[in-house]
Amino acid sequence: MIAKHARPDHPIAAVLAERSSPYGYDPRPLPAADLRSLFEAARWAPSAFNEQPWRYVVAVRQDEAEFARLLGCLTDTNQQWARHASALAVGVASLTYARDGKPNGTALHDLGLAAASLTVEATVRGLVVHQMGGILPDRVRELYRVPEGFQPLTALAIGYAADPATLPEALRRRDMAPRTRRPQAEFVFGASWAVAAVLD
Amino acid sequence: MIAKHARPDHPIAAVLAERSSPYGYDPRPLPAADLRSLFEAARWAPSAFNEQPWRYVVAVRQDEAEFARLLGCLTDTNQQWARHASALAVGVASLTYARDGKPNGTALHDLGLAAASLTVEATVRGLVVHQMGGILPDRVRELYRVPEGFQPLTALAIGYAADPATLPEALRRRDMAPRTRRPQAEFVFGASWAVAAVLD
Repeated sequence: MIAKHARPDHPIAAVLAERSSPYGYDPRPLPAADLRSLFEAARWAPSAFNEQPWRYVVAVRQDEAEFARLLGCLTDTNQQWARHASALAVGVASLTYARDGKPNGTALHDLGLAAASLTVEATVRGLVVHQMGGILPDRVRELYRVPEGFQPLTALAIGYAADPATLPEALRRRDMAPRTRRPQAEFVFGASWAVAAVLD
Repeated sequence: MIAKHARPDHPIAAVLAERSSPYGYDPRPLPAADLRSLFEAARWAPSAFNEQPWRYVVAVRQDEAEFARLLGCLTDTNQQWARHASALAVGVASLTYARDGKPNGTALHDLGLAAASLTVEATVRGLVVHQMGGILPDRVRELYRVPEGFQPLTALAIGYAADPATLPEALRRRDMAPRTRRPQAEFVFGASWAVAAVLD
């Protein structure tokens, strides 16, 4: 794992601390068996009423035409670095319940649960996943005939982290920058909003 | 781990296969250090522009008054089983970007990323997390003075899975039921929607 690790204030599992979202990818093909296990991890994520509202459109770099087509659904900025990934996926949420057609208020949230599971499996396998919101959803809808009621939301660049030393200066700086997070006191509340929780 | 494991079609990490969302909890207090590590795991989740749009309101069962107050923010059905958890949390999403006040389209998704990270850390520690959409968001807003622009979305029951043999029949049946998921061909698409991806 080349990218910088998290610097947690409390101990967390290595598979979480070692996860990062790099910009530098080493453009090698990814074995299909690894990708199947990544989507299998997504598959077993929890969801409201076990609705499994996640769908993915996927392309692997060895299929150049399909890879280019999916890459073209990212913003220009994201295309610049994501084109070196081994595989690309667009995450799509099903916005209504299959059983009764009513709105699924946790569909986007549950797509996030699946993406995080996928990313855990990737980390275990020495792979990296950089998720991005910068996609062209209308282009995804048109090119892939996404039906009404489904929302393309994110893309995932999946592959092998490049050694930052091999990267152009701009990318190297991004992949070597210290990682930061707000402290728990700013998001773990107790008796009221913005009041830090007491947990013992 | 007492609850039933996933039955994956492709190998996935044990921390994912052993996760489950049980209804039966053994009502023991949870060390604060464990809870801190769970929220630390959430803290290091990725998010769009590193916005970290997740907030949590948390109560531990040893603080009976606060625990009862947060339990009262769940639907009646969920209160029935979640009252045995060691800790409860309500997940709240920040719907606008802190930097420019614009809508954050991935806020709910990124709350899901944080929840999944938290759940991985719990599983590593032999704990269980059952997430639920069945909450009373207006009650959360009122009791905890949640500001405009934030959306209470989910609750998490965190604790120790009970041995199903000790549970009442209805709960035991739920915790022993076989786990099911749609096959990958139904959500991993390639050249077009509903066309199964070819990954090699």
